[in-house]
Amino acid sequence: MTDWGRLAADRLDEIAQISEAGPGVTRLPFTCEHRAAIALLQEWMEEAGLRARLDDAGTLVGRHEGRRGSGTFYLGSHQDSVREGGAYDGIMGVVLPVLAMRRLKEAEALPPVSVEILAFADEEGVRWPTALIGPRAIAGTFDPAVLAMEDKDGVTLRAAIEAFGLDPERIADTRRQNEDAIGFLETHIEQGPVLEECGAPLGIVTAICGIERHQIALVGEAGHAGTLPMASRRDALVGAAALVTETHRLASATKDLRATVGELHVSPNGVNAVPREVRMTVELRSPSDGIRSDAGLHIHACAEKVASDIGLQIRAERTYAQPAQPCDARLASLLAQAVSNLGEDPIRLPSGATHDASAMADLCPIAMLFVRCRGGVSHSPQEFASPQDLGYAIDALAGLLQQIARI
Amino acid sequence: MTDWGRLAADRLDEIAQISEAGPGVTRLPFTCEHRAAIALLQEWMEEAGLRARLDDAGTLVGRHEGRRGSGTFYLGSHQDSVREGGAYDGIMGVVLPVLAMRRLKEAEALPPVSVEILAFADEEGVRWPTALIGPRAIAGTFDPAVLAMEDKDGVTLRAAIEAFGLDPERIADTRRQNEDAIGFLETHIEQGPVLEECGAPLGIVTAICGIERHQIALVGEAGHAGTLPMASRRDALVGAAALVTETHRLASATKDLRATVGELHVSPNGVNAVPREVRMTVELRSPSDGIRSDAGLHIHACAEKVASDIGLQIRAERTYAQPAQPCDARLASLLAQAVSNLGEDPIRLPSGATHDASAMADLCPIAMLFVRCRGGVSHSPQEFASPQDLGYAIDALAGLLQQIARI
Repeated sequence: MTDWGRLAADRLDEIAQISEAGPGVTRLPFTCEHRAAIALLQEWMEEAGLRARLDDAGTLVGRHEGRRGSGTFYLGSHQDSVREGGAYDGIMGVVLPVLAMRRLKEAEALPPVSVEILAFADEEGVRWPTALIGPRAIAGTFDPAVLAMEDKDGVTLRAAIEAFGLDPERIADTRRQNEDAIGFLETHIEQGPVLEECGAPLGIVTAICGIERHQIALVGEAGHAGTLPMASRRDALVGAAALVTETHRLASATKDLRATVGELHVSPNGVNAVPREVRMTVELRSPSDGIRSDAGLHIHACAEKVASDIGLQIRAERTYAQPAQPCDARLASLLAQAVSNLGEDPIRLPSGATHDASAMADLCPIAMLFVRCRGGVSHSPQEFASPQDLGYAIDALAGLLQQIARI
Repeated sequence: MTDWGRLAADRLDEIAQISEAGPGVTRLPFTCEHRAAIALLQEWMEEAGLRARLDDAGTLVGRHEGRRGSGTFYLGSHQDSVREGGAYDGIMGVVLPVLAMRRLKEAEALPPVSVEILAFADEEGVRWPTALIGPRAIAGTFDPAVLAMEDKDGVTLRAAIEAFGLDPERIADTRRQNEDAIGFLETHIEQGPVLEECGAPLGIVTAICGIERHQIALVGEAGHAGTLPMASRRDALVGAAALVTETHRLASATKDLRATVGELHVSPNGVNAVPREVRMTVELRSPSDGIRSDAGLHIHACAEKVASDIGLQIRAERTYAQPAQPCDARLASLLAQAVSNLGEDPIRLPSGATHDASAMADLCPIAMLFVRCRGGVSHSPQEFASPQDLGYAIDALAGLLQQIARI
């Protein structure tokens, strides 16, 4: 009897070898590594009875043809990695559903609907300052303007796609019809510690968090650390410290909010200089857009107060905002049932990270299955999910696929 | 009648022209600018009846010969500037006592003791990673090992002194006898806002603050700002913020303590990354060594507590310590009397910055006269002290010199 989890782990090891030199996995879109990954995935798709083809956005599509007019259910994730990333992020969401389909084929239990497994070219956005080309093309939201973007060597996205033997002018043609699309399910490592802390192998995502980012500059006055009395100081770092503390306190006290000051620069940044200016970022994430935007307003108000107390000037700007993307309740419930059938507790949790599913949401209902990862670590060679947990995920995917029909 | 303050201002303007190109004044030691400054100062010294000579440490010495056996009173400061510095820091402490001596000569009121006005080569330490060569040579604490230090072009201090026509092997011979030395008085802009806030042109320094510096590294764990729940974080920046706040609070609540977190580096410093590590400095200054070292112990204890609360590792090290240097009470009192005689309040204040006087203290009692500077600004082209305040300072110096005798 096949040990599906072990087989998945072996396959993830095998495809992890397709990488630029260096620690971990570095597999960027529209490179020779991408081409080699496609060849291997295509072989595995065909073994699972899927018909594989590459679309003009570089997405490898493996299709099972269901009953005519039954609609299409999509699964998948991205083939690319960050630089020196791990063997699970993205690619696991392609390898597992392919094995689930193979298992159903071997059991002669293939679903009545059509199924497409999608291996997207680029989710990490490492090579060009854009991402999600594949799911946006499929959802009909692809913006051709990004084709002109250049990588660090001056290669445009357009040129890279052409060099891959694809036609960038035809990307718009990959758009699918909403009426045919039943839903999209992405399987991904959690990239966080929640499932590990709960002792659960699998989690059902409730929503993909919305994100907003703020750039805050606090400007006081530089001074000599020896000669400027404390009461005369307008120390930008003292103001920034108050804001870091309040940001952390707010998120710690607010359900469904994560808030991070990740970046902070001090000027002039000398041992004996009272800091004149601090530039910092505040990032807020929440599955609730209301909680998130309330937090943004609170942080701005707090920054104004801190600045006024210390005599600093302030520039605060929301530089980015992306709404939360709720997962489909019916798909989530089917998925939870499939997990429960394995005797496991289907933990519900939001996804703090953005995923291909965020873009697929413009086409159809979405769902996400999270797999427990060791220490919550991702984007690192240390990324790890156990073969046993991979097996649970294949079981859950196969279970769901047997239940899926036009919903 | 000579307007001495106006004349001082004109001379400071004139010598400020001797600078490398660029904003403000850039005059480094043992350069052609230094040589040109010496020529001008020598002319002014001779005009004041002083006999000028250059010693082997590059100090221009202008001497008035008093009664035999009456001892020598020293005044002076440094000729060099920081890069793009101002027209007052250092050089003012040479120009003003030369004019005070000229004024006493014209009034036929020269002091009975010998007087030497010292224009030191290097106090700022910009060209080599050492400073105070001149006063250390005179006080007998010069360390010949620094002669091997190289500037950014690979020129050693030894080679630069030789190219100046001086003999580095004879620097030790410039040492003076303690028995002959009555005291040293340095005149300097305040480099802080205290006199301006008090509405006083002149201040009497009580002590030169001791300094200690600490390097503190807080190490937590990096994480994805979206996926890591708040309760699972070990955010190094949250710990650092608590320490910045406590450092500022402590110094604000402690008389005679200044404390500054001037330098702070975050890793990995990305908008969506929970900070893994913060390296920061804490600098403490106080005229009281006890207050200063208690504060250092408090900061270390606070860092330990913050680290333990958040689950961070900590490395805290005191990397530098320099004891406070009290000013001589009798000299300070004579100086205060001279200021009072002008109808001005002799404000007493510590010097937060280090000065040539710190090194001269190894030879003899020291005193410092601070001159009000606009906005407390120094080390900048905006540095400014008014001609009127320069006049007050010349009056006070002349007054003191008339009172000085072996004390």
